[in-house]
Amino acid sequence: MIFASDNWAGASDRIVAALAEEARRIAPAYGGDPLTAAVQDRFCEIFECEVAVFLVGTGTAANALGLSAYCRPGGVVFAHSQAHILVDEANALEFLGGGAKVVGIDGEGGKLTPSALSGAIARHPRAFVLHGQPVAVSLSEITELGQAYTPAEVSAVSAVAKEHGLALHMDGARFAGAVACLGLSPADITWRAGVDVLSFGGTKNGCLAAEAVVFFNPADAHDFPFARQRIGHGFSKARFIAAQFAAYFEDDHWLELARRANAHAARLAAAIHNSRDARLALGPAANEMFAIFRTSLDARLKAAGAVYHPWSPEGLPAAARPGADEVLVRLVTSFQTTDDEVERFAAVLTAV
Amino acid sequence: MIFASDNWAGASDRIVAALAEEARRIAPAYGGDPLTAAVQDRFCEIFECEVAVFLVGTGTAANALGLSAYCRPGGVVFAHSQAHILVDEANALEFLGGGAKVVGIDGEGGKLTPSALSGAIARHPRAFVLHGQPVAVSLSEITELGQAYTPAEVSAVSAVAKEHGLALHMDGARFAGAVACLGLSPADITWRAGVDVLSFGGTKNGCLAAEAVVFFNPADAHDFPFARQRIGHGFSKARFIAAQFAAYFEDDHWLELARRANAHAARLAAAIHNSRDARLALGPAANEMFAIFRTSLDARLKAAGAVYHPWSPEGLPAAARPGADEVLVRLVTSFQTTDDEVERFAAVLTAV
Amino acid sequence: MIFASDNWAGASDRIVAALAEEARRIAPAYGGDPLTAAVQDRFCEIFECEVAVFLVGTGTAANALGLSAYCRPGGVVFAHSQAHILVDEANALEFLGGGAKVVGIDGEGGKLTPSALSGAIARHPRAFVLHGQPVAVSLSEITELGQAYTPAEVSAVSAVAKEHGLALHMDGARFAGAVACLGLSPADITWRAGVDVLSFGGTKNGCLAAEAVVFFNPADAHDFPFARQRIGHGFSKARFIAAQFAAYFEDDHWLELARRANAHAARLAAAIHNSRDARLALGPAANEMFAIFRTSLDARLKAAGAVYHPWSPEGLPAAARPGADEVLVRLVTSFQTTDDEVERFAAVLTAV
Amino acid sequence: MIFASDNWAGASDRIVAALAEEARRIAPAYGGDPLTAAVQDRFCEIFECEVAVFLVGTGTAANALGLSAYCRPGGVVFAHSQAHILVDEANALEFLGGGAKVVGIDGEGGKLTPSALSGAIARHPRAFVLHGQPVAVSLSEITELGQAYTPAEVSAVSAVAKEHGLALHMDGARFAGAVACLGLSPADITWRAGVDVLSFGGTKNGCLAAEAVVFFNPADAHDFPFARQRIGHGFSKARFIAAQFAAYFEDDHWLELARRANAHAARLAAAIHNSRDARLALGPAANEMFAIFRTSLDARLKAAGAVYHPWSPEGLPAAARPGADEVLVRLVTSFQTTDDEVERFAAVLTAV
Repeated sequence: MIFASDNWAGASDRIVAALAEEARRIAPAYGGDPLTAAVQDRFCEIFECEVAVFLVGTGTAANALGLSAYCRPGGVVFAHSQAHILVDEANALEFLGGGAKVVGIDGEGGKLTPSALSGAIARHPRAFVLHGQPVAVSLSEITELGQAYTPAEVSAVSAVAKEHGLALHMDGARFAGAVACLGLSPADITWRAGVDVLSFGGTKNGCLAAEAVVFFNPADAHDFPFARQRIGHGFSKARFIAAQFAAYFEDDHWLELARRANAHAARLAAAIHNSRDARLALGPAANEMFAIFRTSLDARLKAAGAVYHPWSPEGLPAAARPGADEVLVRLVTSFQTTDDEVERFAAVLTAV
Repeated sequence: MIFASDNWAGASDRIVAALAEEARRIAPAYGGDPLTAAVQDRFCEIFECEVAVFLVGTGTAANALGLSAYCRPGGVVFAHSQAHILVDEANALEFLGGGAKVVGIDGEGGKLTPSALSGAIARHPRAFVLHGQPVAVSLSEITELGQAYTPAEVSAVSAVAKEHGLALHMDGARFAGAVACLGLSPADITWRAGVDVLSFGGTKNGCLAAEAVVFFNPADAHDFPFARQRIGHGFSKARFIAAQFAAYFEDDHWLELARRANAHAARLAAAIHNSRDARLALGPAANEMFAIFRTSLDARLKAAGAVYHPWSPEGLPAAARPGADEVLVRLVTSFQTTDDEVERFAAVLTAV
Repeated sequence: MIFASDNWAGASDRIVAALAEEARRIAPAYGGDPLTAAVQDRFCEIFECEVAVFLVGTGTAANALGLSAYCRPGGVVFAHSQAHILVDEANALEFLGGGAKVVGIDGEGGKLTPSALSGAIARHPRAFVLHGQPVAVSLSEITELGQAYTPAEVSAVSAVAKEHGLALHMDGARFAGAVACLGLSPADITWRAGVDVLSFGGTKNGCLAAEAVVFFNPADAHDFPFARQRIGHGFSKARFIAAQFAAYFEDDHWLELARRANAHAARLAAAIHNSRDARLALGPAANEMFAIFRTSLDARLKAAGAVYHPWSPEGLPAAARPGADEVLVRLVTSFQTTDDEVERFAAVLTAV
Repeated sequence: MIFASDNWAGASDRIVAALAEEARRIAPAYGGDPLTAAVQDRFCEIFECEVAVFLVGTGTAANALGLSAYCRPGGVVFAHSQAHILVDEANALEFLGGGAKVVGIDGEGGKLTPSALSGAIARHPRAFVLHGQPVAVSLSEITELGQAYTPAEVSAVSAVAKEHGLALHMDGARFAGAVACLGLSPADITWRAGVDVLSFGGTKNGCLAAEAVVFFNPADAHDFPFARQRIGHGFSKARFIAAQFAAYFEDDHWLELARRANAHAARLAAAIHNSRDARLALGPAANEMFAIFRTSLDARLKAAGAVYHPWSPEGLPAAARPGADEVLVRLVTSFQTTDDEVERFAAVLTAV
C-alpha cells in the first residue's frame, strides 16, 4: 500500500527486457546508433510532425535544458508558484539558464490562467532592463496538483505567451497520464495548442531513467547537443535510454501503463468519497490526488502498512485546509500499484 | 572485430540481471533506498576507508562535479593537454566550475610530471589576481593515451599539488582497468597516493550508465548533493545506478571484466608486434593502444570488417608519426570483445 | 524640480575636486596604490572594527558580489518581495551566485519581519535537496519603500538568520541616509546588529560611481578579489574610486550630503501634509516618500516643470491605493536638490 | 621615470574638466541622458557606419561581455596564447561566456596567423560535440607584445574566422595607439577588415575608467543591455563614462594623447638602440616595448629611480632570451610620460 510517489515505482518488465536485449549488442556511442535514430523517428510519428528529440537522464535535466534553449541574459521565466521547476529542482533552471529567474504565479489546481500570466508579464516591460527580459512560460501537464490542462486551456496560455514573444514549455513528467486521461492525441495537447518544447517523461511511468526533450521547432535546438553534453547528459551509451523508449512506445505500452495508474487513482478517489473519515481536497485527473483524513483514519492506515506523504495546503483550494483533528495527504498511484493494494486501502477507508 | 571504443560495448549479463531484479521492487526515491546505502558501504570497504560516495549518470558529470567541489571564483585546474576534461567534455568543467579554466600541460603517455606541473603552477602566483587562482590538479588513471600511473607517480604529482594547496582529482573512467593491470588495491593508487576525489567509472567496463564520485575527505562533499541535483544527476530512481554497482562489485565482477578487456588488448599488441605491416606507437597498459598500420594492411582489415578509429599523433611519442603510406590508429578492447574477434584480427595482421 | 531619483543627481564638488587632484598623480594599478590602502583603513575607523573592504563600480555589483560570497550550489537567498536584488538587478545575483534563487517575502514598508522570514526558511528544510539550500538573508537599509530598520529590527532578523546558519547581507545603497536619519553609528546598525556583509553606497549620495563591499568577518572575503576581477569590477585605476571615498568621508562630508537630502524630503513631506490635493502614502525616513496626488495637482505640478515617477501600489499600505482621480507617485530628493526647488514645489502643492 | 604600465597613469586634464562640468548637471539615470546619446552618435561618426555602442567600466568587462554576445553552450574562442582574455582576466570570459573555453595559439609578436588559426579550428570539427563548438576569434590591436596588426593581417585572420562562421573580436585596450601608429582610420582596421565587435579602450590613454563595446552589426547586440546590467556594468550615472568619451573625442584629443605616448616610446627605443648595455627584444609599434638590459644597467636605472617590470620571455622571439648577466624587461609609456623622464632615462642608458 505504497502511495508515496510514482518515483518509488520500479520499471516495467517489457522495458527491462528491452534493455537486456540491447545490452548484448555493440554499437556506436553518444547516440550515433541505429536504435537512437529509430526512437527519434518514433517521436515524430507520435507527435505527427517533424520534431527534434534529445534523450536525457532525468526530468530536471529535461526541464532545465529545454527551457534554457530559450533563456537569454537576464531571462525571466513565468511558471505556477507550485511548479516543479520553481520549487523542486534545486535551482537547475537558474543555473543552466545562465542566471534565469522564475516568477511564480498563483492559480487553482496548479494551473496558469491567461489573466494572471498577463499581469505578471506586464510587470516586466521590455524596455526596462533592470527587471530582466521575459523569455518563456512553463506549464506542467499533469500539474503539480494533479490536474490536467485541456487543449483550450493550453492554447489560452500560449496566446498570451506568443503575444509577448515568449516560448511555451510544457513539463510533461506525467505526460502519458495526461494523454491517457484526456483521451486526446499527443499533438493536440502540445504543438497544436502552441507548445514549443516538451519535457517528455518516461521515468515515472515504467522506465528506469528515460526522459526526452522534444522541440516542435527543430531550429530551436541548434545548441542543444552542446548544452546537454556540458552537463553530462549526453550519455556514452545513449542507446540504453533509446531502448527504454522503444519498448515504452511499442504496442502503446506507455498508454497502457498510464491507464493502469489512472484507474487505480480513480478507485482510490471513489473509496475516499465513500469514507466517513476522509474527503477529497483535490481529486485526480490522472494518478495524483489530495485528501483530508481524520487523524484516527490516518493512524489506522499507517498501522495497516500504508505509506503516503502529508502535504502542505499551499496552492490547494481553501476547502483543503485540514481541521483540528485532520491531516492533509497526497496519494499517488503508479503502473506498479496492484489491485490488492487498492482494495486493502479502500477497505480501511470505508471500514465502520 | 570492433575496436573503436569501450563506449561501444553493451553491458554485462550479471549487471542487467541485477537491474531486472531491482525493477520489480518499490523503494524510496532520490537515493533514500537501502540498496543505495549498501553500495555506499561497499565503496568504503573497497577503498578501505570512510568515503563520501555519490552516484551519477556519466563520466563527464562525475569529473566536472567532482572537480567543481574545489573550484572557486577564477579557479584554475591543471591537467594533461590530452585530458578528457580539457578536450572531450564540451566545457563541462568550465561551466559547472563557475568559469573554471583548465591549463593543459604536456607529458609523455598522457602523464603529468611533477616538474611540468610545478612550472605551470608557478605561472599562477597566488597574489596575482588577474591570472586566476589555482584550485586543483586532475590526472587520469588510465591516461587518455592508455598508460597507467604507478602509485609513486601519483604521489609525486600529489606532492606538488599539496605544496600549493591544490586538490588532486583522478579521472578513473577506466579505473577498473588500472587496478587490474597494476595489481594493486584501489586504496594504494588513490588516497594513499594523495588523491582527494575520484571519478569511479563503471560504464566503460560493463555497466549501462553508472559512475560514482568518491570523496576521500567526506567534508569536501558538503555541497555535492545540491550541485548534483541542479544539473539533474540526482536521479529519482537512483537505485538503478546502485543496482549496477552492487552487481559490478559482487564476486569481484568488475575486476574480472577489466582483466578480460586487458587480456584481449595484450593479445592484440602481441599480434601487432609480430606483424610486418604494423608497429605499436604506444602499447597498452590496460585496454587501449596506438598502432601504425601500413595503408595496405589498413585496407585489408577494413575489408575484413574491422572497425577502429584513425588517430592524431598529438601527444604521442615522436616515433608515432606515421610515414607516407602509413596510418596511425587507436585500438580499444572491452569486456565484450571475444576471443574470436581477436584471433581474426590477429590473423589479418600477421598474414603474409 | 526634479524628484525622479537620486540616481539622476550629479556629484559633489569636493568629490570631483579629489578626482582632479588624483588624476595628476601616477600610481600602481589594480588597487595597489596608497590611496586605496588609506581608504580601506578609513572604513575600519568608521565601522570601529577590522573589516575587509573592496571597491566596485555599482550597487548591483556590490550586492551580487557580496552575497555571492555566501552562495553555494542550489543556494537560496531570502529578501523582501520589493528588494532591489530581486526585482531591479537584471538577475545579477542569480547569475553571479551560480544560479542562486531569491525568495521574496512580503512585509510592511519594505521590511522583513522575523516571523515571515522564519516561515519562508521553514519551507526549505536542509535535508530536502530538491528545494535548494538556504544560504543568506538580505535586507535593505533604507528599504526600497524609503523606511529605516532600527538596530533592534535588524537584530531580530539577524537572530533568525543565525539560527539557521545563514549570512546576513545589508543593501546599503542609501546607507548614509540611514545613518543620518537614525543618528546612530555605522557599527550600531551593521555588525553590532548582526550584519555580515554590507553594500556601502556612495553613488546615490554625491559620488560619481563609488560603491564598497564591506565584510565584517574578513575571512569571508577569501575569494572576493577573484570574484570581483572576473566580472571586471577590479578597476585598473581603482584609485579613482578610492579618491571619491576619501573625499566622501573627509569632514563627515557623506553625512552632510545625506542630511541635506533628508531635510529636503522632510520639507516636501510637510508640504504634502498641508496640501488639500495630496496625501502621503508612505512618508520618508530618509530621502524617499510615496504620495497620492489628485490628478489636477499632478497636472499643475508637471506644467510647472516638476519631474517624478508614477508608482505601483505593490508593497505599499492598503491606504496607498489611489482613487479614481488620483495618482500614486514616488518622490526622491538628493544632496543636489535646492531649497528653491522644494519651495516652488511646495508652493504648487499648497496653492488654493 | 615610471614605465611600469599605462594603467599607472592618471587622467587627462580635459577629461577631468568634462567630468567636473557634467557633475553639476542633473539628468536621467542608466544611460537615458542626452550626453550618452551624443557619444553614441560620435562613435558612429568615428567609425563611419551605424554601430551599437555600450559603455562599461573596464576592459575586462568590455572583452568578456563583447565576446559573450557570440558565446553559445560549449563555446570555444580562439586567441593568442598571450592574449589578455586568456591569461589576465581572471576567467572573465569563461564565466560570462557560460563556460566558454579559450584555446591559445602561438604566433610572433602576439599575432594570430591565418595558418595557425586554421589548424586550431580544424581540431574542433562542428559535428564532434565533445570538443565544444567554435564561436569566435579574438585578436588584440595593439597586441599584448606591443605590435600592430595591419588591416591586411586583420583581414587574413577574419577570412579564416568567416570561413568557419566565427565572429571576430578585437581587444582594443590600446586602440588609440594603434590608430595613431598605423595612421589609418578606425574603420580601416576594424569593420572594413572584418571585425564584428571591438573593445574600445579609453582608460589606458587618459580616461579614468571608460571603455566601450562597439558592435558593427547592431543586431548582434540584442541581449547586451541585459548582459551588461546583470554584472553591474550598467552604471546608474552612466553619463560620467559618456562625459569622458565626449572629451576624449573632442578635437581628436584621443589621438593626440596616443601620439604623445607613442613618441615617448620611440625615443626610448632609440636610446636603447644606442646603448652598449641594452638591446631591444621587441620594439614598440605604439607605446610598449621589450628590452634586454645588462644587470649592471638595470641596477643603475633603479638607483636613479626608474620603475619598470621584469618580464618572462614566453612568446617573445628566441633572440629575446636574456643571457647570464642580463634581464628582460617591459617598458610602457603613457600620455602622462614627460620629456624629462625620457631624457633622464636615456641618459642613464647611454652613459659610458
